[in-house]
Amino acid sequence: MSQQTNDFTKWYIDTIQKADLMDYTPVRGCIAFKPDGYEIWEHIQAEMDKRFKETGHRNAYFPMLIPESFFQKEKDHIEGFSPELPWVTEAAGEKLEERLALRPTSETMIGHLYSDWIKSYRDLPVLINQWANVFRWEKKTLPFIRTSEFLWQEGHTAHENEEDARKETMQMLNIYKEVVENVLAIPVYDGQKTPSERFAGAVDTYSIEAMMQDGKAVQAGTSHYLGTKFAEAFNIKYLNRENKHVYVHTTSWGTSTRLIGSVIMVHGDEKGLILPPKIAPTQVILIPVGPWKKNPAIIEKLDEIFAALKAKGIRVRLDDSDQSPGFKFNEWELKGVPVRIELGPRDLENNQAILKARDEDEKITVQLDGIVEAVEKELETMQKRLFEKAKAFRDANSHTHVDTLEQLKAHIEECEKKGTIPGWILAGWCGDDDCEAKVKEETKFTSRNIPFNPPTTKHTCIHCGKEAQHTVWFGRAY
Amino acid sequence: MSQQTNDFTKWYIDTIQKADLMDYTPVRGCIAFKPDGYEIWEHIQAEMDKRFKETGHRNAYFPMLIPESFFQKEKDHIEGFSPELPWVTEAAGEKLEERLALRPTSETMIGHLYSDWIKSYRDLPVLINQWANVFRWEKKTLPFIRTSEFLWQEGHTAHENEEDARKETMQMLNIYKEVVENVLAIPVYDGQKTPSERFAGAVDTYSIEAMMQDGKAVQAGTSHYLGTKFAEAFNIKYLNRENKHVYVHTTSWGTSTRLIGSVIMVHGDEKGLILPPKIAPTQVILIPVGPWKKNPAIIEKLDEIFAALKAKGIRVRLDDSDQSPGFKFNEWELKGVPVRIELGPRDLENNQAILKARDEDEKITVQLDGIVEAVEKELETMQKRLFEKAKAFRDANSHTHVDTLEQLKAHIEECEKKGTIPGWILAGWCGDDDCEAKVKEETKFTSRNIPFNPPTTKHTCIHCGKEAQHTVWFGRAY
Repeated sequence: MSQQTNDFTKWYIDTIQKADLMDYTPVRGCIAFKPDGYEIWEHIQAEMDKRFKETGHRNAYFPMLIPESFFQKEKDHIEGFSPELPWVTEAAGEKLEERLALRPTSETMIGHLYSDWIKSYRDLPVLINQWANVFRWEKKTLPFIRTSEFLWQEGHTAHENEEDARKETMQMLNIYKEVVENVLAIPVYDGQKTPSERFAGAVDTYSIEAMMQDGKAVQAGTSHYLGTKFAEAFNIKYLNRENKHVYVHTTSWGTSTRLIGSVIMVHGDEKGLILPPKIAPTQVILIPVGPWKKNPAIIEKLDEIFAALKAKGIRVRLDDSDQSPGFKFNEWELKGVPVRIELGPRDLENNQAILKARDEDEKITVQLDGIVEAVEKELETMQKRLFEKAKAFRDANSHTHVDTLEQLKAHIEECEKKGTIPGWILAGWCGDDDCEAKVKEETKFTSRNIPFNPPTTKHTCIHCGKEAQHTVWFGRAY
Repeated sequence: MSQQTNDFTKWYIDTIQKADLMDYTPVRGCIAFKPDGYEIWEHIQAEMDKRFKETGHRNAYFPMLIPESFFQKEKDHIEGFSPELPWVTEAAGEKLEERLALRPTSETMIGHLYSDWIKSYRDLPVLINQWANVFRWEKKTLPFIRTSEFLWQEGHTAHENEEDARKETMQMLNIYKEVVENVLAIPVYDGQKTPSERFAGAVDTYSIEAMMQDGKAVQAGTSHYLGTKFAEAFNIKYLNRENKHVYVHTTSWGTSTRLIGSVIMVHGDEKGLILPPKIAPTQVILIPVGPWKKNPAIIEKLDEIFAALKAKGIRVRLDDSDQSPGFKFNEWELKGVPVRIELGPRDLENNQAILKARDEDEKITVQLDGIVEAVEKELETMQKRLFEKAKAFRDANSHTHVDTLEQLKAHIEECEKKGTIPGWILAGWCGDDDCEAKVKEETKFTSRNIPFNPPTTKHTCIHCGKEAQHTVWFGRAY
């Protein structure tokens, strides 16, 4: 049995370290993002940011330190976050009068400021996003997926009424789904969170949920309709069109560097990373093969291909180091580079090169004359292929045949026997928190979300057997 | 006397608040960057980042929290920064065993990691930059210019030898100078800092220094050659080409959101901001004038101009609100929009529009047929004109006639009498810290830098009258 199937977490940690994406640091749960890891984030940022701006949002930056009293104002919020907060208690040699939290999220600071910024319906909507570092002092950490400090974006918008705010909430969830599916090549289920899994302080939380290759779920993005809860807590009122002072309706939405971890866990294989072309730091690696050092025409031709690809905006590198081709193949496969081009003396004679896609077994022979087009086409095809592969995997492990808790236990037991992954199950749910909690207690399967488009509808609650109010994805989660 | 000349700080604060660039927050010395303020930073970031990448640097991200013990390792560094550090002492309900500082800069954390990452000369150079928030708990703060939390970039590189490291130090200083002069339209003096003004832990510090309209200086960017000081403190050794373990030579360099403040202070006037086109969130504002509501052809034409400018990548807005043209003129002038286009019924009849550059008194009539080209040309011309104006001002207030401390005092006194600004003076300096300190004590003029290309060379020390070792810019500074 391979390491990837045998001990998925070990495979994951080994892979991201060998591929030079991150390093541990002496600060508990805080990692260093090395250039290859950080550049994946930069590409995700660029894609997200473009879409935020196209939909009228602007970036801003708010203080990282949040006075303790701010957290007290929304009681669900403080209950949810207080167990995880780091506190600044001293500065410049003096004890502070009030403790300052390192932000876990910025609803409170932003709520405080919006109460000042928003006076009239003419000021609405306020559509602001922030790219920032945030802190959640978690007990169990895993690089990228769950760290004490992480990077994210958090959108915070304010609207005249519920309808507009709900429209915004869904718009941003749809943007997340589109980016995660089309850019990261990760299929997701979009849907609503159950009340017990809601963001602390939200009226409704929506999520996109992705399945890793060990069958566990990563919540890849969330979008919250906050109603008037933060508006009431921070007194964000405006003069409406009927000349009355009323509360705004707010939303917030976020995605984080855990997307980097998700990409690795969804696409990687025994050889290392497999990066979707759209976010790969290096998209194409050029490698001379055969007795290329005696034949300067090889490197000349590769330089030419390099320049031609670069001119097309493709992120290309040439590996002309002294290592053997086999060593280089392994190294660049480990780093997940989507396309490799090999060129040796015989290839050059035949006016051709060898193209190898990272996720395919077969090598392809391509004519040198059309090599730029061939590479472009392969990058495009691979992007779609990775999504389709991940979707086939996800679908094969999304089970709809389980109706009762007993059946779920039997399903899990069977998977353990066979050494397969249990994946997710679609289950009916009566809406009672206790039934949801019981499933978790007995199987570690938690509700992922109530999908907008379930493959089928369930009619009885998986736990109590009563009439189902919702059809829910359940699975183990990071 | 105008507010700008009368109370420059008040003018500055009023202007950035009215122009909606920032807001104060309840956390001491921490501001909120509002969208118009933050977008200036985004444009600066994009310009800097492009140049960093063109010169082979890559971005990474390091933990914000730094263990107290790290600071102890380089004694100059801890001495310089410890008075300004905020400390996390508790997290998740527990007291930490070791206090964690909010980073004031990341040499220590990065030094710790580089000692692991760098093994051989093959690993060098390491060329990494980080975009991040940093903290310095300062007593006196001023929005953008000096805040407890600010945003910046910090480059951290490691090299085989002194020569390479010094080359890097100068390369980055030159990039800073080029961006600040060509993008922010702010002329700077580049040169070396005196030992007393060096970065805590540096062997040599170089800076670019900009003059504000009140004659005070802003250190607009610094680049440090750190020698082997941090390498020794953090044991960053590598196997060199002679197979010996030796210390790397490191550099660091940074620019921050104080550049936003500098742009305002260098270019602004009584009416508000004047933003250089290259960083203006809105570059062109279109305003209908005359009885335009009765004449839909006006807005149609403006929509057409809007689309044509947008297609050229110009950041354009149309103000079709109900306010009067005069009100709109004031508002967009306050926000510093470089170019205004007015279009009324008579203009349309004559197939022309009115173009007004923010920094010029005269309006220009432009033909509608060539309006896109006219706007493009004006943006380009204005960018250069703002630099030339700022340079003329800076040069006129850079005095070379002062040779002694008595003359400096007389110069200051005369300026105070006349109500003019004292600007900067070029002075000889013997190299003795005490002489430098004495000038500061008696005049509040501090050494800015030892310029690479002084307008003239001074031969005697401004304080002791002995032979000058250096020719130095002195001035009051933020």
